Amino acid sequence: MFKQLGVIGCGLMGGSFALAMKKAGLVKHVVGYSKSPSTTETARRLGVIDVAADSALLAVSGSDIVLLAVPVSATEATLKAIRHLIGPQVLLMDVGSTKCDVVDAARRALGDRLPSFVPAHPIAGKETGGVQHADAGLYQGRTVILTPLAGTSAQAVQRATDVWANLGAQVLKMSPKNHDAAFAAVSHLPHLLAFAFFQSVAAQPAGRDFLSLAGPGFRDFTRIAAGDPAVWRDILMANKAEVLAQSQRFRQTLDALEGLLKADDAAALEARIRLISDARGQWQMGQMGQIGTPRPAK
Amino acid sequence: MFKQLGVIGCGLMGGSFALAMKKAGLVKHVVGYSKSPSTTETARRLGVIDVAADSALLAVSGSDIVLLAVPVSATEATLKAIRHLIGPQVLLMDVGSTKCDVVDAARRALGDRLPSFVPAHPIAGKETGGVQHADAGLYQGRTVILTPLAGTSAQAVQRATDVWANLGAQVLKMSPKNHDAAFAAVSHLPHLLAFAFFQSVAAQPAGRDFLSLAGPGFRDFTRIAAGDPAVWRDILMANKAEVLAQSQRFRQTLDALEGLLKADDAAALEARIRLISDARGQWQMGQMGQIGTPRPAK
Repeated sequence: MFKQLGVIGCGLMGGSFALAMKKAGLVKHVVGYSKSPSTTETARRLGVIDVAADSALLAVSGSDIVLLAVPVSATEATLKAIRHLIGPQVLLMDVGSTKCDVVDAARRALGDRLPSFVPAHPIAGKETGGVQHADAGLYQGRTVILTPLAGTSAQAVQRATDVWANLGAQVLKMSPKNHDAAFAAVSHLPHLLAFAFFQSVAAQPAGRDFLSLAGPGFRDFTRIAAGDPAVWRDILMANKAEVLAQSQRFRQTLDALEGLLKADDAAALEARIRLISDARGQWQMGQMGQIGTPRPAK
Repeated sequence: MFKQLGVIGCGLMGGSFALAMKKAGLVKHVVGYSKSPSTTETARRLGVIDVAADSALLAVSGSDIVLLAVPVSATEATLKAIRHLIGPQVLLMDVGSTKCDVVDAARRALGDRLPSFVPAHPIAGKETGGVQHADAGLYQGRTVILTPLAGTSAQAVQRATDVWANLGAQVLKMSPKNHDAAFAAVSHLPHLLAFAFFQSVAAQPAGRDFLSLAGPGFRDFTRIAAGDPAVWRDILMANKAEVLAQSQRFRQTLDALEGLLKADDAAALEARIRLISDARGQWQMGQMGQIGTPRPAK
């Protein structure tokens, strides 16, 4: 049980955390701050936060748990602004989708306050951001990844684990490096590909006509191309090296498939697609994949 | 109103057409043939067809409307096998996802019977194929594209248009070439990309772990990677040139986005993503796109 939650960034992620913490009975009092005063005011009016603070520092004052839910590019400046109020009894977490950059920023900004900081990435979200979509159930049943550093206090990691578990999330721990490699592969690259693909269709001379003919496959394949521009700018910039490495792998696989096509090797193309189709058919979200053990050919 | 429908290929598409034609009161008697005798028998047992024929030719015998619903690679051989029973009063259609190859096959196979053939592509389907999923409502509210040739009889085109309209579909006419370019862009290339992307993630050393972390964005982006291997082998092979041309366009767009990333040009990257995100946000399936008229920046 915490005395006071300070939320910096009262959007979908921060607002949902505030609602979930209250609903779980883990905190009674929530102080919130957003860069935009109208957002902070909306959060207060909707009952997502109890008190609107005029600065990030004021949201931290008196709080024993602090959630940083700002664009990752704002992490370092925000941490510097609140640094001197992060005592050893404060649990400080973020919710950023990239972790190496956040950890680097924390190392630079926090100094001897680093032990209180537990970098976190909840695998949760909605198509539509904003505090008006904040939802006490957002983290229920979802995975939250913690990427603690050698300097993070064991007690802080344990408290962070307990908090997320109490909100109904499954907690995994991994290194920032492994986290960023994994999410470059399963999230960041697909966004980049969806952006590029949609643009490539839309920008051609007959693009409008083509788009009017597109069906459900296209709809699902491009859904993530509607992602928030500021969020995805930050994520792609922050995880550039891993994203580009994954893109190289993807291009090699695409080259190989196109090679079979160009060589008119229908049998090899079908065999390759069958392996992929079977593996994708077996994959389920949140479960260990069964790659490499294809089902018998139909 | 037709006397008898002959269905060659009693799978999802052919079976659904038979059920829809009966339900609409457009035909009383359906004769069906599939390469696999057990499929034909299942279609008969389920009431999708009335009589199981032992050959494609026998399914055509006595029919005044014939639907070819076989893999596109089997089109030419099938047309040759039924050719001499395709009289001027017979309406012959296919349901293939590619049209240039089908039209070429028809030109080679049908000779003076060509006027009866109206190439058709209903934009409809289900995740799961097979006659057991045949559905009288499959074509209701969907688009059906007809790609008639100069040699196709105007009467046959009119009858085909009336048939699909009576099944509740919206009928569009375009040239085989335009059809194949459009579907390379909005359907065939995304399938190829989804196959390549899924394989690229799954095949790396940590692929299993990565897949276990993937969320809803990944799920939707890769849904079409579970497509039927034989169907997609045929489509990609048949429309190879257009698919490779679309892939080139896609790679250029991807190169441009990655160029911004490599140049650390965050502002330009965000601006580009905003145009894409806005355009995708405005796109709706089955409606004219609004590309090029982005919403004001948020």
